[in-house]
Amino acid sequence: MTRLFSTTVAADDSGTQMMDQPSRLITGTDVRQACRSGTWTGPTAGLAPGFAQANLVILPQDWAFDFLLFCQRNPKPCPLIAVTEPGSWQPTAAPTADLRTDLPRYRVWRDGNLVNEPTSIENLWREDLVSFLIGCSFTFEAALQRAGIPVRHIDLGRNVPMFRTNIRCQPAGRFSGSLVVSMRPMKPTDAIRAVEISAQFAASHGTPIHFSFPEQIGITDLNRPDYGDTVPVEPGEIPVFWACGVTPQAALLESRPPLAITHAPGCMFLTDLKCD
Amino acid sequence: MTRLFSTTVAADDSGTQMMDQPSRLITGTDVRQACRSGTWTGPTAGLAPGFAQANLVILPQDWAFDFLLFCQRNPKPCPLIAVTEPGSWQPTAAPTADLRTDLPRYRVWRDGNLVNEPTSIENLWREDLVSFLIGCSFTFEAALQRAGIPVRHIDLGRNVPMFRTNIRCQPAGRFSGSLVVSMRPMKPTDAIRAVEISAQFAASHGTPIHFSFPEQIGITDLNRPDYGDTVPVEPGEIPVFWACGVTPQAALLESRPPLAITHAPGCMFLTDLKCD
Repeated sequence: MTRLFSTTVAADDSGTQMMDQPSRLITGTDVRQACRSGTWTGPTAGLAPGFAQANLVILPQDWAFDFLLFCQRNPKPCPLIAVTEPGSWQPTAAPTADLRTDLPRYRVWRDGNLVNEPTSIENLWREDLVSFLIGCSFTFEAALQRAGIPVRHIDLGRNVPMFRTNIRCQPAGRFSGSLVVSMRPMKPTDAIRAVEISAQFAASHGTPIHFSFPEQIGITDLNRPDYGDTVPVEPGEIPVFWACGVTPQAALLESRPPLAITHAPGCMFLTDLKCD
Repeated sequence: MTRLFSTTVAADDSGTQMMDQPSRLITGTDVRQACRSGTWTGPTAGLAPGFAQANLVILPQDWAFDFLLFCQRNPKPCPLIAVTEPGSWQPTAAPTADLRTDLPRYRVWRDGNLVNEPTSIENLWREDLVSFLIGCSFTFEAALQRAGIPVRHIDLGRNVPMFRTNIRCQPAGRFSGSLVVSMRPMKPTDAIRAVEISAQFAASHGTPIHFSFPEQIGITDLNRPDYGDTVPVEPGEIPVFWACGVTPQAALLESRPPLAITHAPGCMFLTDLKCD
């Protein structure tokens, strides 16, 4: 299976002389400008706290209806924040942005194969490209932490563990696939609060899709995630599963469109939307 | 302006010998079967209580992306319940349904002009047609009534008053237009509860978009609705405004697609989705 997610991608760049200081990247605009000027090419976790980050998927127009329908039918893994008009690189969620330059790093896929990881896609731009911004889990994780609920993978400095489930997404045209979930271990009382809190963040995957029994959704070994890092579930805790933004990427790549452009793992788009 | 909504459409048919008794139409399936067999061609308000009803919009595929995007960008007036694959007349919200026959009555529009009001569209069906089911206000109105909040236009046996506002919808491709709202007068304490309750019905227009000051959203005379009937606001009450499903129909007709098929006013599609 194509590797979708890695914690190490672009980490090489974080030590270069040109690199901006994360502490200077306070707003969504700051991060986008640093990306545009080439002074930030690394992961965006922790940058511009309080601003919503988004997954990016770019497709040719003749694939866009099917993908929009896939997102509409599967809102928990694919919470749409914005969709551009064909040919436009300016999303409503950040009117001054340029989606061709304002992410730290992109991935370019041809027929489902990764062919390049550029820091700009200006030279690839076409008038028929449609851009989809999809909410990511950073938003509700920050809200959990503000409520005093520990988020272990963050505390451990790891990537969240993600698993393919036996739950099929609602297919749409040429797109289909299995639901991918992320897992966060919690005490039961924290899990109850986490349901309450995440219910307020529909654009960030909303409430969990399952908890307690991984085998009921086709997960056989919590110590062997399909993507991301292993995170321990301690005695007295339950694993809590949320729909994950890797789901649409996996469905996208399995359908092998002639061209697709996505964010590089961890290198998200910073919007102007406040999320706290 | 084209007349979109009338309480009298199809009322002529309700007295025919063939007509089914409303009291026998208990489930979504009952209503759809009665429509399919031609024994029900009238309005659906009050039929199959507890089952969600939906607005229907059918468009050729080359207009479908723009309309799907319009709905995605304007979720309050256009809460999507389901969108079919091109050529399919079976929505996921009612897998045994046939969208070509299972509504009491349809409206056929060519280049934005109403040309026919048939009870079946089988002879118009094409492989490139995409069907959109959009939530309607019946669902949250029933919930308001269950909570003991009077809904005056129902109590008066009238159609809800609707108004064009000066709020512009987010345009999408060839679709743009003004937000149309429905108005329900309420005591302030009931309005607070109505916000709480309608917040749970995102697929039925969700929370209000405004209240108290009609002039702030471009409404000059509450006694002269643009669609529907007049309903009085009594002393000590405020007008409460919800986004209305007429919004996408108005945007649709202004854009004049070569073919569009909608439900006839008040003659909605009955889903299998329970809403109480």
